[in-house]
Amino acid sequence: MAVIDGRTGLEQLSRSVCLELLGECEVGRIGVLVDGAPEIYPVNFVVEDGHILFRTARGAKLRGIDKSPSVCFEVDGIDRDRRTGWSVLVKGRAEVISDAPTARQQAESRLRYWAPGQKVSWISIEPREITGRRILR
Amino acid sequence: MAVIDGRTGLEQLSRSVCLELLGECEVGRIGVLVDGAPEIYPVNFVVEDGHILFRTARGAKLRGIDKSPSVCFEVDGIDRDRRTGWSVLVKGRAEVISDAPTARQQAESRLRYWAPGQKVSWISIEPREITGRRILR
Repeated sequence: MAVIDGRTGLEQLSRSVCLELLGECEVGRIGVLVDGAPEIYPVNFVVEDGHILFRTARGAKLRGIDKSPSVCFEVDGIDRDRRTGWSVLVKGRAEVISDAPTARQQAESRLRYWAPGQKVSWISIEPREITGRRILR
Repeated sequence: MAVIDGRTGLEQLSRSVCLELLGECEVGRIGVLVDGAPEIYPVNFVVEDGHILFRTARGAKLRGIDKSPSVCFEVDGIDRDRRTGWSVLVKGRAEVISDAPTARQQAESRLRYWAPGQKVSWISIEPREITGRRILR
């Protein structure tokens, strides 16, 4: 049974559906605060033990997370032909992980990088809130 | 001739290529600051006179823009099969527009909404900085 948001007319996705969609994606978008304004960067990621894990090089993402660990992470599926789509927004706390070798090892075996470049820092996002919406046709 | 970022290994897209890609998209993602943390929402949009225009209902996006007009706007093209993609990030200032009926009329005729719901507020983003990157194969 679809739950419809009266204000937006969009279907509200349950947490379990959101987690399922998140698990199917290879690319998500991290939203970080840099110099007081948001920035969005696509990254390859995996979900491991309920955390979003990805790697990054030194740069704006990492500086942003260092200064302001409250981040968001978005995935979506857009069907241009059918003019429909869904999106999932995770709000949480990001941290650079230096320990947890087991989680990293597991993630490493599953994480595929499309982009080149040295990505030496592991980032983990602990979800605090997960919401999702879908256009009903 | 592709310009490669030495740190990330990604191709840096010129402003004109970024604008071209932006103009081809029907869905982009606005990054807004809500309660001190970034949030990302997909929206249907058009580019009109160099500004990004979209409509929204009362909600988090609008509250965020009211309080913190420094926003970002992201579009990307992800090719999962070929494991490649590009992204464009616009940083700029968002405002609720109540005048400029001509620009709005022009935008209205081109803007297609996929999602239902009353979207009474017009938002305009004036780009301050436009950057893009692409994975080279």
